[in-house]
Amino acid sequence: MATLVLLRHGESEWNIKGLFTGWVDVTLSATGEAEARRGGHMLVEAGVRPDVVHTSLLTRAIRTANLALEAADLLWLPVQRSWRLNERHYGALQGKDKAQTRAEFGDEQFMLWRRSYDTPPPPLADDDEFSQAGDPRYALLPPELMPRTECLKDVVDRMLPYWYDQIVPDLAAGKTVLVVAHGNSLRALVKHLDGISDADIAGLNIPTGIPLRYELDAEFKPVSSGYLDPEAAKAAIEAVANQGK
Amino acid sequence: MATLVLLRHGESEWNIKGLFTGWVDVTLSATGEAEARRGGHMLVEAGVRPDVVHTSLLTRAIRTANLALEAADLLWLPVQRSWRLNERHYGALQGKDKAQTRAEFGDEQFMLWRRSYDTPPPPLADDDEFSQAGDPRYALLPPELMPRTECLKDVVDRMLPYWYDQIVPDLAAGKTVLVVAHGNSLRALVKHLDGISDADIAGLNIPTGIPLRYELDAEFKPVSSGYLDPEAAKAAIEAVANQGK
Repeated sequence: MATLVLLRHGESEWNIKGLFTGWVDVTLSATGEAEARRGGHMLVEAGVRPDVVHTSLLTRAIRTANLALEAADLLWLPVQRSWRLNERHYGALQGKDKAQTRAEFGDEQFMLWRRSYDTPPPPLADDDEFSQAGDPRYALLPPELMPRTECLKDVVDRMLPYWYDQIVPDLAAGKTVLVVAHGNSLRALVKHLDGISDADIAGLNIPTGIPLRYELDAEFKPVSSGYLDPEAAKAAIEAVANQGK
Repeated sequence: MATLVLLRHGESEWNIKGLFTGWVDVTLSATGEAEARRGGHMLVEAGVRPDVVHTSLLTRAIRTANLALEAADLLWLPVQRSWRLNERHYGALQGKDKAQTRAEFGDEQFMLWRRSYDTPPPPLADDDEFSQAGDPRYALLPPELMPRTECLKDVVDRMLPYWYDQIVPDLAAGKTVLVVAHGNSLRALVKHLDGISDADIAGLNIPTGIPLRYELDAEFKPVSSGYLDPEAAKAAIEAVANQGK
């Protein structure tokens, strides 16, 4: 039996502003910092002691991990980071206002971009102010791997190699693994773990800052799962579902 | 030519109180947090861009690294941690007041414990409130490796394997390496790099929060070295030398 804990980063500065963020590297809001610390306290209260941490390359996930680990007196844990855990690249929508985009393109197109499994937004030009082309953190990514837009299917495809090659070996070694990442990279992982269909994944929202624990069997399939604070998770999921309204 | 940057953690809560700290896991003071951020800005201003970071397992070094990297927009860098970069274990002095210890044992004994190369303080009992026996971060250290006191020679002996096995390979791969650690683990490394004698190392103090850059040749010997802010370093070194007076 292996334990996996997923933690979505707390509120970012662009969550407040209602902007599509994707790979744009915005930091946490003060609320997001408090959510991160609360997530760390939830780990302690639940008696969940990770042995190793995995994060994306984005500041809001890394700071969430750092603040949660500090609250849990676990800053010393080994940590590994990868672009494969990054948020979905939102293409040409990056930096755009969510409500304005909804008004401009209509509900149907808006929901298609946000929730369809295999329809990415238009690609983002490399010379756009919100492009990550030339960002040194992706210097080792060859051009054909570097996304310019992604749908959730793309995220599943680029996330799964990290799951199989980096996270599963930690679980197989008996470690409790904490993954601190993003709404869509975690939806991609939950889709895989829970065997959610391409259609049904549209209805799944993961709340920020509340650890989601999985107990996995010897084949790394879920035996049980649940948020460490189910009441807070329920309220937060409803809030996420209302974004852009 | 390889670049190595050493950074000593900023002021801790026990630096303010004038207590021997060693392996006791105290956090940074507000001043220490500011020093860490300033260290990150110095990296940016000097155009020094680390590719990889190494820290000890102690919160004050990890938080210094995190705050400096955040200030430099480099939180995403890969990081590796080891007990081999920890501060010197101060034995039975851990948790003791420096000025009281000096008054009680006299100047000579005090300076011997602080600065002699090969005289450790008395060992700390495992059931002492300031012992790290049972701390989960050292769970993988077998009892014969877990220190109960250390002199600087002991620190050199346990630090060098990490230098040779973990840091040198990064340098050999052409990476700029940032090491964020402690007064004595960094003195041990500087002693090795600069070939300082057992006698002369007593006079070497490393200031907090000011990056010390080494350019190394193909045999990892220093070609040049210097603090990124030499004026600030000079003032800080004098302050460290006056501790316990």
